[in-house]
Amino acid sequence: MPQDLVTAAILVIGDEILSGRTKDKNIGYIAEYLTGLGIDVREVRVVPDVQTEIVEALNALRSRYTYLFTTGGIGPTHDDITADCVAKAFGVPIDVDERAVEMMLQRMKREDLNEARLRMARIPQGAELVENPISRAPGFRIDNVIVMAGVPAIMQAMLDNVAPGLVGGTPVTAVTIQAGSLPEGLYAAPLGEIAKRFPELWIGSYPSYSPAGFANQIVVRGRDAGQLEAAEAAIRSMLDGLKARQG
Amino acid sequence: MPQDLVTAAILVIGDEILSGRTKDKNIGYIAEYLTGLGIDVREVRVVPDVQTEIVEALNALRSRYTYLFTTGGIGPTHDDITADCVAKAFGVPIDVDERAVEMMLQRMKREDLNEARLRMARIPQGAELVENPISRAPGFRIDNVIVMAGVPAIMQAMLDNVAPGLVGGTPVTAVTIQAGSLPEGLYAAPLGEIAKRFPELWIGSYPSYSPAGFANQIVVRGRDAGQLEAAEAAIRSMLDGLKARQG
Repeated sequence: MPQDLVTAAILVIGDEILSGRTKDKNIGYIAEYLTGLGIDVREVRVVPDVQTEIVEALNALRSRYTYLFTTGGIGPTHDDITADCVAKAFGVPIDVDERAVEMMLQRMKREDLNEARLRMARIPQGAELVENPISRAPGFRIDNVIVMAGVPAIMQAMLDNVAPGLVGGTPVTAVTIQAGSLPEGLYAAPLGEIAKRFPELWIGSYPSYSPAGFANQIVVRGRDAGQLEAAEAAIRSMLDGLKARQG
Repeated sequence: MPQDLVTAAILVIGDEILSGRTKDKNIGYIAEYLTGLGIDVREVRVVPDVQTEIVEALNALRSRYTYLFTTGGIGPTHDDITADCVAKAFGVPIDVDERAVEMMLQRMKREDLNEARLRMARIPQGAELVENPISRAPGFRIDNVIVMAGVPAIMQAMLDNVAPGLVGGTPVTAVTIQAGSLPEGLYAAPLGEIAKRFPELWIGSYPSYSPAGFANQIVVRGRDAGQLEAAEAAIRSMLDGLKARQG
């Protein structure tokens, strides 16, 4: 396994994802983004808008990984309880944060800051704010937990704002090798042998299916350029041998 | 909370989802499908191709919910370890299952059933098979755990095949009310009051954002038609009042 591992988990909060009404677009985006920073996403959970479930997941994940990124549940309505759950998980007070109010005043007048909207300025004590250039109500970071909006455009902007403060790992390079219509079942055994020879790389085989048939891709991921090159060469040579025998 | 609750979790298995290389398309599909059967999805997890992680998640989720649906990790390559992990989680033996071999022989000749492909016929003892009309290698169900492929077209076919054997719940009806450009912060407080009056319903507010601005939807979900109707009327009347004041 690679050295200097920086890990992360993603916690998606919201009934609307679990009912299937809203199709999550954040998991894949965050995963790809963090991978680019050399941070390995090791786990994702989706939980409902229920305090006990959110707090339990927050504590399980923040203790286990370098970073925990959450999405959802920071709006003004009654089902937006993420900030309160984070405060509970950390055992710190939560109240309206004047820095957050100032940010929100960039977009609305003070007389429009009703009680519901002020809920969006409730920030656990000790958190740093994460700017939201779109609707202004901020996300925040407390210790290793980064709390972001669920609306993809806002989440993405928050991720851009928080990224410079993250400790990245050595980036992982991925090499994709097209196996085309060569069946997985034909190359699975020799690919497994190659994977055993390179225990520090991740080697996976990914079929995709369309009515025209299967198209398989082999992906080699790792942090050591020399090993990646050697594994790629071994796989290409193995596939060429099989194709020659098939042809 | 509704009576006769039938619950489920989804466990997505695969490094490719966590690296962001593959964007999951199964969670939203399964969630919507099960919601249609009256089964409430209460939790989702994504874990890597690592035995300890998979077994731990299997045991945590299968003990907690009526059903657990898994996707991914049942192909022929070295990183496909789901079936073995399920056997380990249940403490049962696993071996090549002749019923699965017969299914696979519908698509390939016996002499092509090499050791790697026979891995796809490894089924934990006591499991029922779930047919795969596309590539034939089956999924399976053991106790309350349903193990499906990760390729969406195959997963969807497997879900169709397993659905008739599931105990469904009372279906949930969802009513969507367009709040349009009315800001969430304006209706959050009265919506919260309405939500308190209908504790057996789920009431959520979901903003979506485009460069043209926000468009908000309020969704009311529940199993009691009378309550749904009453809550919808209360919300529409509340929104109309706010719009009139805005106009």
